[in-house]
Amino acid sequence: MATALVLEEKGKLSLRDFPLAQEMGPDDVRVAIHTVGVCGSDVHYYTHGKIGQFIVNEPMILGHEAAGVVVGTGANVTHLKAGDRVCMEPGIPNPTSRASKLGIYNVDPAVTFWATPPVHGCLTPEVIHPAAYTYRLPDTVSFAEGAMVEPFAIGMQSALRAGIRPGDIGIVTGAGPIGMMTALAALAGGCAKVFVADLAQPKLDIIGRYDGIETINITEQPAAEAIAEATGGWGADVVFECSGAAPAILGLPALARPGGAVVLVGMPVDPVPVDIVGLQAKELRIETVFRYANIYDRAIALIGAGKVDLKPLISATLPFERSIEAFDRAVEARPTDVKIQIELPQG
Amino acid sequence: MATALVLEEKGKLSLRDFPLAQEMGPDDVRVAIHTVGVCGSDVHYYTHGKIGQFIVNEPMILGHEAAGVVVGTGANVTHLKAGDRVCMEPGIPNPTSRASKLGIYNVDPAVTFWATPPVHGCLTPEVIHPAAYTYRLPDTVSFAEGAMVEPFAIGMQSALRAGIRPGDIGIVTGAGPIGMMTALAALAGGCAKVFVADLAQPKLDIIGRYDGIETINITEQPAAEAIAEATGGWGADVVFECSGAAPAILGLPALARPGGAVVLVGMPVDPVPVDIVGLQAKELRIETVFRYANIYDRAIALIGAGKVDLKPLISATLPFERSIEAFDRAVEARPTDVKIQIELPQG
Amino acid sequence: MATALVLEEKGKLSLRDFPLAQEMGPDDVRVAIHTVGVCGSDVHYYTHGKIGQFIVNEPMILGHEAAGVVVGTGANVTHLKAGDRVCMEPGIPNPTSRASKLGIYNVDPAVTFWATPPVHGCLTPEVIHPAAYTYRLPDTVSFAEGAMVEPFAIGMQSALRAGIRPGDIGIVTGAGPIGMMTALAALAGGCAKVFVADLAQPKLDIIGRYDGIETINITEQPAAEAIAEATGGWGADVVFECSGAAPAILGLPALARPGGAVVLVGMPVDPVPVDIVGLQAKELRIETVFRYANIYDRAIALIGAGKVDLKPLISATLPFERSIEAFDRAVEARPTDVKIQIELPQG
Amino acid sequence: MATALVLEEKGKLSLRDFPLAQEMGPDDVRVAIHTVGVCGSDVHYYTHGKIGQFIVNEPMILGHEAAGVVVGTGANVTHLKAGDRVCMEPGIPNPTSRASKLGIYNVDPAVTFWATPPVHGCLTPEVIHPAAYTYRLPDTVSFAEGAMVEPFAIGMQSALRAGIRPGDIGIVTGAGPIGMMTALAALAGGCAKVFVADLAQPKLDIIGRYDGIETINITEQPAAEAIAEATGGWGADVVFECSGAAPAILGLPALARPGGAVVLVGMPVDPVPVDIVGLQAKELRIETVFRYANIYDRAIALIGAGKVDLKPLISATLPFERSIEAFDRAVEARPTDVKIQIELPQG
Repeated sequence: MATALVLEEKGKLSLRDFPLAQEMGPDDVRVAIHTVGVCGSDVHYYTHGKIGQFIVNEPMILGHEAAGVVVGTGANVTHLKAGDRVCMEPGIPNPTSRASKLGIYNVDPAVTFWATPPVHGCLTPEVIHPAAYTYRLPDTVSFAEGAMVEPFAIGMQSALRAGIRPGDIGIVTGAGPIGMMTALAALAGGCAKVFVADLAQPKLDIIGRYDGIETINITEQPAAEAIAEATGGWGADVVFECSGAAPAILGLPALARPGGAVVLVGMPVDPVPVDIVGLQAKELRIETVFRYANIYDRAIALIGAGKVDLKPLISATLPFERSIEAFDRAVEARPTDVKIQIELPQG
Repeated sequence: MATALVLEEKGKLSLRDFPLAQEMGPDDVRVAIHTVGVCGSDVHYYTHGKIGQFIVNEPMILGHEAAGVVVGTGANVTHLKAGDRVCMEPGIPNPTSRASKLGIYNVDPAVTFWATPPVHGCLTPEVIHPAAYTYRLPDTVSFAEGAMVEPFAIGMQSALRAGIRPGDIGIVTGAGPIGMMTALAALAGGCAKVFVADLAQPKLDIIGRYDGIETINITEQPAAEAIAEATGGWGADVVFECSGAAPAILGLPALARPGGAVVLVGMPVDPVPVDIVGLQAKELRIETVFRYANIYDRAIALIGAGKVDLKPLISATLPFERSIEAFDRAVEARPTDVKIQIELPQG
Repeated sequence: MATALVLEEKGKLSLRDFPLAQEMGPDDVRVAIHTVGVCGSDVHYYTHGKIGQFIVNEPMILGHEAAGVVVGTGANVTHLKAGDRVCMEPGIPNPTSRASKLGIYNVDPAVTFWATPPVHGCLTPEVIHPAAYTYRLPDTVSFAEGAMVEPFAIGMQSALRAGIRPGDIGIVTGAGPIGMMTALAALAGGCAKVFVADLAQPKLDIIGRYDGIETINITEQPAAEAIAEATGGWGADVVFECSGAAPAILGLPALARPGGAVVLVGMPVDPVPVDIVGLQAKELRIETVFRYANIYDRAIALIGAGKVDLKPLISATLPFERSIEAFDRAVEARPTDVKIQIELPQG
Repeated sequence: MATALVLEEKGKLSLRDFPLAQEMGPDDVRVAIHTVGVCGSDVHYYTHGKIGQFIVNEPMILGHEAAGVVVGTGANVTHLKAGDRVCMEPGIPNPTSRASKLGIYNVDPAVTFWATPPVHGCLTPEVIHPAAYTYRLPDTVSFAEGAMVEPFAIGMQSALRAGIRPGDIGIVTGAGPIGMMTALAALAGGCAKVFVADLAQPKLDIIGRYDGIETINITEQPAAEAIAEATGGWGADVVFECSGAAPAILGLPALARPGGAVVLVGMPVDPVPVDIVGLQAKELRIETVFRYANIYDRAIALIGAGKVDLKPLISATLPFERSIEAFDRAVEARPTDVKIQIELPQG
């Protein structure tokens, strides 16, 4: 029995005692949770009670962006020990499935994922987790940054699948949290410069403060025009579509250079029109992204080395007992909020 | 002055004398044309007078799938000599453009292409062509096969961009000429087996005669169901979309395995709905194809080695003086016709 | 207690009862062994008692190239059932190790491998094996071919790492069993033509019988000269070094085209001189091969589809009771022997 | 007739009038040279009179690392105009050769290269150069930095061929100028951290001042041990061998992680022993580097964006009239000298 932030049903959160029957296996660790970020998907379950075919039919603990401290280790665990500061991948695949054997365990159909019905999340003082998906944080990475690894991992997966080559010019359409993460990952991942296009100036102001990022307010200038100007008419090497918005998706061919790449990160709810002939005329490669695999190590390395600074994206930190307030603020979607985090009591 | 098959205007062909002022440069060869295939784009200019923004405003010679014999060489030409049997790439790029320097000369915006207004085609006894885009045919490759290299090159480009790995399972949606070429290229290019799906049984009968090809008549069974059965529910490694049809495009995610690839070869006239979330859920890579670059050598090598036999796809061969008849038959689009060729008088 | 072919110590084989304490887990299958191929490494343990740091200190069962029939399945196994004809990967990794998570479980340092001390092999009537590394054979693939999948998988891994593109020209140096397997994998994997170079004519005669293979007897013509002739001085797209011989390795740059690839398959015992500047002058990519990962499915698909015929490489099949004779014949290394197999009595 | 720095013969330099019969073609630009860096190869021709098969038989102008100002343009040139500040690729390929068509014009056998006998270099007030290999410098890049683009391009080519993925850990063996360039390119190109190993502490001090670089003095600790400590025994993702030294080359397998990459940048004069089995045991990919292709744009982008600062590597700048002194200082090879540049009088 432990306190947890429970989504009782659509629109109703409780911070209450919740029975969790987890058993510690020989390959597991027990982790005291320190910080948990509030993700758009958590908020969406709160406001809608479902995402696609995933429906909240039973009370479910929310939260999947977490950092904490190892407090116990299974018999087979060698790379972690009690006291280690860690963060965790929220998805656990079947490690010998066909997809996992190929190294793409993120698309294993059998994967279970925190706070995706019927699997509970981690907004509770302690969780048991497979050691193989638990990663040690270096001293240079705080718990708050550790809890940012999960959303940053999506940006990293996007950067990785883009196949960025040193000195590429990138553009991100959509300056939401994932768009920002993607821009920073692309920049750290080898782009000389990354443009970020959006129509909300407050968001552009936040991301535009980073060296190497240039912003395009598309209410003032079309993104394609800005990119053409910046690249002598050639286009961007890599285009990251992070808005999920139909007009942005239709306009993708105009942003890329001949032979360039497009990464589809944003998730439009329904099928949207795509200008296939436009993509073909430049023989573009299009990559898609689904969560991440084999990313945490490299994400932590970049943060730990100081090449990526995610701290400016943490907009507010609330204590565990104010978790519901944290979620309600996230529902507001203030344009100056990027990430809201919840800190759990320690010791 | 030489005889040529001239598209005078939409719907009107003449076989008549035509003044062609071509100058032979030091890097060029002069080629006596032997065989020319009739392509769907030739036919489309004939029936519609335009393709997209390319409009036939002046009389234009048709034809771009050609094989012939070298009858003269410029001063700098060393790899070809008079008497060599050859085929030619119909597209000529600016070789020092930014795209060409990258090796992707097919997407050089400055490329000129035979029988694409205002550039004349090759349905005339003699052409002058850059030696660098002229390829020697081995003795084992006939003129008729040489004239098939151009359409086969599109299939080869598709296979190459797919990144086929030895033993992959492929599927082609759409059994038109390009779909067939793609299926054969994918099979020669490493697939263990290639499924071809269409609703026209006569086309499936033609391509189904090849070892390694299996056909799916989608009026009898959905392609996704057939692939699921054949792969134990896993999906195809590589999906080649060659129909350009909206339902096929919408259904692409269901055909591919997690982490697989989709190659968009067919060209839907307008933007069509794409199930982006479906593509993301399997983290598919999508490649597009625009003509070809650096393909002729390898296409000729496969044909010359006997790994690809294109002869069964040549449905009829008419002499030059019956060129208009050849085009009118192509307009008919008989389901049992794949490729119609025109043979020019020699000597 | 079951009969097994036991290497008691260097130079001494027994076919005798051997106690094997294997426990069947929920993810395992029990397999009745049908056919086992004799591999060079088995023979090397027999004649030398060790390979590198792997030393036979205790009696060890030999054999790792096996096909058989499932006779029992663990509780979690869903993709196999009793009666299925199968072959098995002899290496079992830790599925959640860092290497395995990346999809390269072949280089997981924790991997255990049949008939590699102190792990027992499979020359015994029944083995227990993880279902995840056990593969169903289609009806078109015999047990004898199933037992060839393991050595063929090395050729396939070589072809895969080569990154063959459709229509490539390949060359294999060294016509031993692995060289032959590699040549066939490269050919099925997209090469237009594969040259095989060796100094033993009987071996060249065997592999030269396949369509698409051309042989070079290097006692008559240097391989580099033959390749230059065949490619107009350009070189091979992909070079597979399967001899492990120092002169072949030193001569690699001369075989490849500018920008081509070299795959190092052969294993020279000691460091050997490499012409690094020669490799650089053509900016070659060099790949190395260590066993295989994620290959069995695709190897079986190619054999099952009839694109690769390994039957001509099975030189002799002996019954289990003549296992020692089979090994002694393998020690002879007759130039006309490629693979010797042992068949176990069934049910 | 113009002044030039002429290598009369081995060991003898003159700064003297030299007749240069260059003709300006329609695709060329005329460039007033501003700054030229002294390269190790220039120095080697000075001290040895040859490099490999390239022998200085006639007086030859030295210099190939140059920046300057466009003073005239050919009729076809559109992307440059008089007054543009530029730098130039010193190698000019045949743009329609087989290699160039593939995009790998650096390995075109027909390439001519400044200051490589019998081709003259650029240490003279004015040169004529193909516009296609001439690149505009943004305002944020000085002439001195522009003249650094050439050596940095080698580091960039190394980083590009490495296939760096965001967050990789890199190591460079050898802290000469190219090793330093490679380390900076790898860092800008996506590595989280790059280790540089050498035995000369003054060199390590120079490169160690950059954020993200860590140095290993191999007289104090073996590089393999330092990497193992830093990576928890896993190894570096990418190893750049820039020393050309036999012991470093033999020790490469110990530095890399399973499945990692090795880039051979350093050029050992003679074949050297390589531990092939060691490379295979981790299934490493080995890339080689020969100059660069399609790199200048991206190198300039990184410098212009401030992601790479090469200014600290410019150790001294001498005026044109003291060119011989500049070369004599370069011959000294002071451990604290990285790059010496020569500035030509302007106007």
